[in-house]
Amino acid sequence: MIDLRSDTITRPTEAMRAAMARADVGDDVYGEDPTVRALEERVAGLLGHEAALFTPTGSMANVLGVGLLVPPGQEVLCESRAHIARAELGAHGAVSGITMRTWSHPRGRVDLEAIQELFAPDLGPFFVPTAAISVENTHNFAGGAVLPLDELADLRAFADARGAAVHLDGARIWNAHVATGVPLAEYGAVADVVCVCLSKGLGAPVGSLVVGREALVAEARVRRKRLGGGMRQVGILAAAGLHALDHHVERLADDHAHARLLAEACGVDPQTVDTNIVTFERPDAAAFVTAAREAGVLAGAVGARTVRLVTHLDVTRADVEVAAKALACL
Amino acid sequence: MIDLRSDTITRPTEAMRAAMARADVGDDVYGEDPTVRALEERVAGLLGHEAALFTPTGSMANVLGVGLLVPPGQEVLCESRAHIARAELGAHGAVSGITMRTWSHPRGRVDLEAIQELFAPDLGPFFVPTAAISVENTHNFAGGAVLPLDELADLRAFADARGAAVHLDGARIWNAHVATGVPLAEYGAVADVVCVCLSKGLGAPVGSLVVGREALVAEARVRRKRLGGGMRQVGILAAAGLHALDHHVERLADDHAHARLLAEACGVDPQTVDTNIVTFERPDAAAFVTAAREAGVLAGAVGARTVRLVTHLDVTRADVEVAAKALACL
Amino acid sequence: MIDLRSDTITRPTEAMRAAMARADVGDDVYGEDPTVRALEERVAGLLGHEAALFTPTGSMANVLGVGLLVPPGQEVLCESRAHIARAELGAHGAVSGITMRTWSHPRGRVDLEAIQELFAPDLGPFFVPTAAISVENTHNFAGGAVLPLDELADLRAFADARGAAVHLDGARIWNAHVATGVPLAEYGAVADVVCVCLSKGLGAPVGSLVVGREALVAEARVRRKRLGGGMRQVGILAAAGLHALDHHVERLADDHAHARLLAEACGVDPQTVDTNIVTFERPDAAAFVTAAREAGVLAGAVGARTVRLVTHLDVTRADVEVAAKALACL
Amino acid sequence: MIDLRSDTITRPTEAMRAAMARADVGDDVYGEDPTVRALEERVAGLLGHEAALFTPTGSMANVLGVGLLVPPGQEVLCESRAHIARAELGAHGAVSGITMRTWSHPRGRVDLEAIQELFAPDLGPFFVPTAAISVENTHNFAGGAVLPLDELADLRAFADARGAAVHLDGARIWNAHVATGVPLAEYGAVADVVCVCLSKGLGAPVGSLVVGREALVAEARVRRKRLGGGMRQVGILAAAGLHALDHHVERLADDHAHARLLAEACGVDPQTVDTNIVTFERPDAAAFVTAAREAGVLAGAVGARTVRLVTHLDVTRADVEVAAKALACL
Repeated sequence: MIDLRSDTITRPTEAMRAAMARADVGDDVYGEDPTVRALEERVAGLLGHEAALFTPTGSMANVLGVGLLVPPGQEVLCESRAHIARAELGAHGAVSGITMRTWSHPRGRVDLEAIQELFAPDLGPFFVPTAAISVENTHNFAGGAVLPLDELADLRAFADARGAAVHLDGARIWNAHVATGVPLAEYGAVADVVCVCLSKGLGAPVGSLVVGREALVAEARVRRKRLGGGMRQVGILAAAGLHALDHHVERLADDHAHARLLAEACGVDPQTVDTNIVTFERPDAAAFVTAAREAGVLAGAVGARTVRLVTHLDVTRADVEVAAKALACL
Repeated sequence: MIDLRSDTITRPTEAMRAAMARADVGDDVYGEDPTVRALEERVAGLLGHEAALFTPTGSMANVLGVGLLVPPGQEVLCESRAHIARAELGAHGAVSGITMRTWSHPRGRVDLEAIQELFAPDLGPFFVPTAAISVENTHNFAGGAVLPLDELADLRAFADARGAAVHLDGARIWNAHVATGVPLAEYGAVADVVCVCLSKGLGAPVGSLVVGREALVAEARVRRKRLGGGMRQVGILAAAGLHALDHHVERLADDHAHARLLAEACGVDPQTVDTNIVTFERPDAAAFVTAAREAGVLAGAVGARTVRLVTHLDVTRADVEVAAKALACL
Repeated sequence: MIDLRSDTITRPTEAMRAAMARADVGDDVYGEDPTVRALEERVAGLLGHEAALFTPTGSMANVLGVGLLVPPGQEVLCESRAHIARAELGAHGAVSGITMRTWSHPRGRVDLEAIQELFAPDLGPFFVPTAAISVENTHNFAGGAVLPLDELADLRAFADARGAAVHLDGARIWNAHVATGVPLAEYGAVADVVCVCLSKGLGAPVGSLVVGREALVAEARVRRKRLGGGMRQVGILAAAGLHALDHHVERLADDHAHARLLAEACGVDPQTVDTNIVTFERPDAAAFVTAAREAGVLAGAVGARTVRLVTHLDVTRADVEVAAKALACL
Repeated sequence: MIDLRSDTITRPTEAMRAAMARADVGDDVYGEDPTVRALEERVAGLLGHEAALFTPTGSMANVLGVGLLVPPGQEVLCESRAHIARAELGAHGAVSGITMRTWSHPRGRVDLEAIQELFAPDLGPFFVPTAAISVENTHNFAGGAVLPLDELADLRAFADARGAAVHLDGARIWNAHVATGVPLAEYGAVADVVCVCLSKGLGAPVGSLVVGREALVAEARVRRKRLGGGMRQVGILAAAGLHALDHHVERLADDHAHARLLAEACGVDPQTVDTNIVTFERPDAAAFVTAAREAGVLAGAVGARTVRLVTHLDVTRADVEVAAKALACL
C-alpha cells in the first residue's frame, strides 16, 4: 500500500529517533525543558518573531493563535475552506467563542476585494467587529496552493490600516518557503501570530508551535494549560522537531516534484500544483478512494466530490511512480 | 426630527397601550400566562408550525433558534451580512459554541451554487459538518430585500436531500408577506425553525418568538431560562403583540411606499426597494448621518460606507415627504 | 387555591397597570427610554452605587453581575444553596465559563472561616484564582434568611484585603431591608455589584437590575445585548418597577408576618423565619406538595425533602389563615 | 538541589528512553498507532473498563472525563481542593460549560452526608441537576491521601441510587494501589470514568488516559481532537507509559517511605502520610519555599499557608535524608 492520505502519517527516521532518545529534557510546564526552549527560540527566530510556544497539535496551535487575536464575541475572516473553518471541529466557536465569516477563492487566496466587503469596522456595541483575518499558506484544501507574498503584504497593509490582526496558519509554511524561495521571516512578517507544524511535511511525529510577540505567547502558555496542552518532559518530541528543521526542509522539493507526477496521472495540470498536495474532483470521491485502495493506493476524500493526494517523507520516487500508474487507470 | 434609524423605535399606540393595560396575565415561567400562550399559539399557527416561544428580543430568538438546530462544534451557513452574523455580538459563537461560514450576495439572496460549494457533508470526525443553513427574510442589511419563495423552496429541497436544517430569521417576515402576498405559512414551510419579531415593523414595544416543532420549542424554553429570558407576567407585552397582529400587519404597505419615496430622493432605484428599508453607499456613511441630522433626519450607518433609512409606524407620509426633500439636498 | 409557590407569581395591581399604561417610553437599546433611565438612576441611588442596568430577569442580572467580576477560567465562591449555584441552569459555567466552589451553612450565611479555607490567592498560572465571593440576601433556599450586616462588612474587609470582589444577589434585598431596617445603601456598600429584582416581593410583572460602577454597568450593557436582553420600549415594564418602589416596599412587613403564621402551622419555629419564605423538611417533599394541593394550597418542592412556602402581594391575611389551617393538618 | 516540587519533574530513565526509541508507531488520529493502542488496551484492562484514550496531559484527561459525564449547564460535585477544581485553570467551566459545588474534608475524603446535602435531584427545568460526583485518589492537595475503598463503594451505591455518574481522578491511583494493595480494577469499579496519569509517580515524560465504556471513549476521541489533543505518531510517548507500567509501579513504595521520612523532619505525623506527598502549614508558605531553596531543597506552595513536598523516581533515599536534615532546621 502506498499511503498518500496525508503527510501527517510519516514515521520518524532512525536518525530522528536517535535525536529524540538523547534529548535533554525537563518539566516544560515549569519552563525547564532545554530542548523545548531551544526549539521555541529557533522557530521564533526563523519566522522573525519574538517568541514561540510548543503545542501537541496544529489544531491547538491554531485555537490558541486565533484566540489570542480575537476576543469572544468578535470575528475572524478566512477563506471558506481554511483548515481553521473546516477541520478543527468547530473549536474556534466551541472553545474560544469566536464567530467567522468567509470568502471563497478556488486557490484559497487572499481576495482583498471580498475581504473589504466583509470587513466590519467597529460601529459601536451593536455590530460584531472584525478582530482578525486568517490566511493559510500553503492552503491544504485548495490543493497545497502557495499564497503569493505580494498579496499577503497587501493584506497586512489593509489590516494595519484598520487596526485588525493577521493570523497565518503556516502548518505547511515550510512547503511554501521551499517552493518559492521566499525566506520564512518574510512570511512571518505578514502576521501577528503564525502557527507552524512539525508533524506534516517535516516528518516529526508530534508538535506544532504558536509564534508571535512575547506577551501574546505568554498568554498562550496559560491558555495552553487550560486546554490540557501543557506537557512535561516533552523535549523528547521537540528534539524531533529540531532534527526535522536540520534535515527535512530542503527535501520538500522532492515531495513537490512527486506531487506533480501524481497530478499528471490524475489529469490535473501539474502547473497548478504548487507543493505536495494534489486535489481533484471526481463524481463520487468516496468511490474513487475505494477504487484506489483496491489498486494499492491510499487516497483521501476531503469533500463529497474532492479527492486529495499528499506526498511526504515516507513515499519514494519509486512509490510515486507505481501510484501514478495505478491511479491513471481509475 | 424625523427618525428613520430603525423600525425598532416605534412607541406603542394608545390602542396598544389599552390592550396591554387589560391583559390577562400569569407566571409564564410556570407556563401560566394566558396571553403569552395565546400569542404563542397564534404565531405558531400563522407560520404553520406546532409551537412557539416568546422571547424578550429577536437576538435571543435567533440565538435559541439557531442553537436548536446546530450543536456546539458544528456550523451554520448564512449570507455574509445576515443579522445573525453581523449584529448579534457573536452570540452564536460566544454563547452557543457554533461556527459559521458565509456566502455573499448583493441582495442577501439564497445562492444555491455557493451553498453547494460550502456545504460540508459528514465526512467523519475530522471535519465540521454543516448542521443548518440560515436565511433572513426580509434581509435587513441587504436593504430589506425579499427572498423569493421559489429560491427558498429550492433551498429546502437541497437541505432535505442532505439532512441539514433550515433556520429562517423572519424578524421582518411580515414585511415580506405584505410585499409579496405570499402567505406566512408558505414562508414558514421552508424552515425547521422560524424566528419572528413583534417590535420592528409591527410596532410592539418588546417581543419576539421562536417557532418550530413541539420538542424543539420545549428545549428552547429551558435554554431561554439559562440565558435569563424567562420572564414572569409578560402577558402585558404579549398583548401588544396580539394587538399588532390584528392592526399593524396590512399597514406595512404604507411603510413600503414610504421607503420607495425616500429611495428616489437618495438616488436609489425604487424598484430595488422591496419593503421598508433603503440602503445606499456614500463615501463616508458617518458623515452623511451627521449631515442628515443637521437637516432634521435621523439616519443610520450600517457599514463604513453604507447608510440605512427605515420607515415605520411612527413616520407619516408627511414626515417622509419632508425627509425626502431634506435628504435629496445632501 | 392559595398559591404559595413563589413571590414571582403576583399579578400587577390596577394602579400598577395604570402606571404602565401611561409610561413615557423610547428605544432603550439606544439608551432613549426615559422611564428605564429613571428606574436605573433610582435603583442605583437606593443602593448607593453609580449606575444600574435593567434586565428581563433576575437570572440575567446575576449572570451579567457575576460575569462582570469573574473572568472565564476563574472562580466565584458562594454558599452551596445560592440561587446562582442551584437555580440558574448552570449559566455561570455554560454562558460565562466560570467555575464555582461552595461552602454550606444551614442559614445560608457568610462563613468567613470556610471562605478563608476556600479562598485561592493568585499562585501563578497553575491555580484557579478566586475572583469574587457571592452572597444572597435574603437567601431564598435557606428559608428567606437575612444575612447580618456585620457579617457582610467582615466579608467586605476580607475581600478587600485580598483584592477579591463581592457580588450581592439582592433579588430579595427589599425584604432584608424591611425586616431589619438596615438602609438599602448599607447593604449596597458591601458589594461591587448588586443584583436586585422587581418581580418577586415587589410585585412588578417583569424586571431586575444590575447595579455597580459606571464602567461595569457599561460593559454589562454590551453583554446584555449578546445574551438577547436588550429590549426596546421597555419603559412599560420599568414603570411597574417605579410604582412598586413607591408602593410595595413597606408592605413586605405583612408578608413577613404571614410567613411566621404559616411557619407555626407547619411546625417551624417562627423565630427562624426572617422574611417571606418558610422552608421545612418532609420525608417526601413532592408528596407533601401533592397533599397540600388537594387541601387547596400550592406549595413548592425545592429539594428532595425540602418544601417551600412563600408569601406575597397576592395572598391576604385571610388566605394565609386558611392555608395555615389546611397545612397544619398534613 | 533536591527537587521535591512535584512528581511531574522526573526525567525518563535510560531504559525508558530505549523503549521509546524503538517504539512501533503510526498515525494515532487515524487510530493506527500500535503502541498507543496497546497502552490503551492495557490501561483499560488494569482498571477493569472497556476502553481508554491517550491524552497529552492529566488536565485534558479530566476535562474530557468530567465532560463526558456532565452536560453543559449541569453540575459536578467534588471536594473543595480537588485538582479539577483548583488546578485546571477553570477548564470545566471555560471549556465544558459545567458548574461545580463542593464539600470540604481535611483529608479530601468522600463525605457522604455532605454529598447528600448537596446532591440535586432532577426537579424539573428550574434547577441545576447533579450529573456526577468526582473524587480524587490519591488526593493531591490533601497530602496524597488515599480514599478508603469502602467509602468509594458507598459513594458508588449512593450515585447509582440517584442515577448520577462517578468520575475518578486517578492521576495517582497507582500510589493508592501500592499503598493499600487494593487491585486497580477495584478502584476502577467505583467510577464510570477514570482518568490516570503516567507522568507523575510512574515517571513517564508525558501522557494520561481517560478510561471508561466504549461509547464514552469514542466520544472522548472526537472531543480530544476539538481540544487539540489528537497527536500523530505518539506511540513514542505511549512506549514510555508501557515501560513505566512494567517497571515503575511497585517502586512507588519507596517514594511513600521517603515521604514519611520527610514528614517526620517537618513535624508532620508520618502516620498521616499515605503516599508520596507531604503537605503542612506554615505562616507564610512562599517564605518557607524560599528558605528551603537556600537550604538546597525545592518545595512548593500550594496555598497561602500550605507547603507541599513530593517524592518521586528522581530522588533517592540519600537525597531524602539530606533534604530531611535541611528542612528540619527551617
